[in-house]
Amino acid sequence: MRREAGKVYLIGAGPGDPELVTLKAVRALGHADVVLIDDLVDRAVLVHAPRARVVPVGKRGGCKSTPQRFIEKLIVRLARRGQVVARVKGGDPFVFGRGGEEVLALAAAGIECSVVPGITAGVGVPAAFGIPVTHRDIARGVTFVTAHARDGAGPDWAALARTGTTLVIYMGMQHINAIAAALSAAGLAAMPAAVIERGTTVDERSVVDCVGGIAEAARAAGLGSPALIVIGEVVRMARSSERAQPLRRQA
Amino acid sequence: MRREAGKVYLIGAGPGDPELVTLKAVRALGHADVVLIDDLVDRAVLVHAPRARVVPVGKRGGCKSTPQRFIEKLIVRLARRGQVVARVKGGDPFVFGRGGEEVLALAAAGIECSVVPGITAGVGVPAAFGIPVTHRDIARGVTFVTAHARDGAGPDWAALARTGTTLVIYMGMQHINAIAAALSAAGLAAMPAAVIERGTTVDERSVVDCVGGIAEAARAAGLGSPALIVIGEVVRMARSSERAQPLRRQA
Repeated sequence: MRREAGKVYLIGAGPGDPELVTLKAVRALGHADVVLIDDLVDRAVLVHAPRARVVPVGKRGGCKSTPQRFIEKLIVRLARRGQVVARVKGGDPFVFGRGGEEVLALAAAGIECSVVPGITAGVGVPAAFGIPVTHRDIARGVTFVTAHARDGAGPDWAALARTGTTLVIYMGMQHINAIAAALSAAGLAAMPAAVIERGTTVDERSVVDCVGGIAEAARAAGLGSPALIVIGEVVRMARSSERAQPLRRQA
Repeated sequence: MRREAGKVYLIGAGPGDPELVTLKAVRALGHADVVLIDDLVDRAVLVHAPRARVVPVGKRGGCKSTPQRFIEKLIVRLARRGQVVARVKGGDPFVFGRGGEEVLALAAAGIECSVVPGITAGVGVPAAFGIPVTHRDIARGVTFVTAHARDGAGPDWAALARTGTTLVIYMGMQHINAIAAALSAAGLAAMPAAVIERGTTVDERSVVDCVGGIAEAARAAGLGSPALIVIGEVVRMARSSERAQPLRRQA
């Protein structure tokens, strides 16, 4: 007979600001014996896991990082020892967070897993920046994509342009020239575009331009990863919203 | 000289489960003199606003509701009296929440407004149901749309189908036959589809079928608004995740 298995919480920590975690995440962290935390998550959230051992499992595009398979094996091993494991990811675990892969690995191992959703960057970052991604009359909806899938191919930018939805591109900075060129070719060269680096954090930096100029504007401003690229008429609204938030500048 | 103006917090309360509000929302509610709360938000969140007067401002598709302009005027009037106003919406204020319109009205009136993002239903409901909306290899990304815009026209379903993204349709139950027909005509008749009513709440109900059968399946199950329609290969994963969450059935 094997020992009773532990439990895993797969937790989304939100877009950056540590105050944007949910009460459910706070409760799950309070139960944790061990926290596996991604690089991009603010360590301030660990205040909610006072009795947990902390294991950083760095993952960031292009840099040295912990392989996904290793992380999955580690979670399974810890849970089999009877530990309560909090696996903390930036944003939402299921929006470009590879949470689905971890859920499958846990299911295959017969380990109980609860998913705690978080605010994905594609919603929270534009919102805090004053961009209503689905503003009535000027956006049909919103689409979240990454620049490249595992097969190396990019999305169908022409089809995306035709949807009339606001486009929010995650992990796109390495490919911003190609993205802007493809969307310009699809007729969106004059469409407003924003790059927001480390949105909702104290280190937030950004530029606003049109699709045709956004790559050069981001380069000139020295912006890099992690950042979101937001494309759509709704980007024009950033300023009116900023006017409504004098506190951010006075504070 | 007019009195010093108050302040408005535009707060997203998340997809349904009252534990899915953020710490920032809790803090803002604690400052509130008055809370304007949408019909679909669980009253349990009001525990965080112990000293506030509560004004329900019902808004639900198709039913009797408070006109948007009236709500905007009420917020401005309360803020001008020096009140701290918490305007609480389901999901995220800027994802089909008309928060952009309220921000513009407040900016025009010169009133300070802070936006507190929330977990939008399109992320939180599939996640809690075990559907990773952007699972690697089987989804290019995710698109959130509504069935109809103010001009009465529907989205370009053929373009949406071509994007290869998971489609999450908000407020679509009144048009589910037309949506399923349009997506079937665009080649998605066999694509897995789910309808999730009141997701993340204790009243959650759902059906899973293919696009061609989802309208009849939802009708047979008696599902209605508020509900999300989720379309994509990722819907197949709901079950493996459910297997990983025995707690939900044992509890």
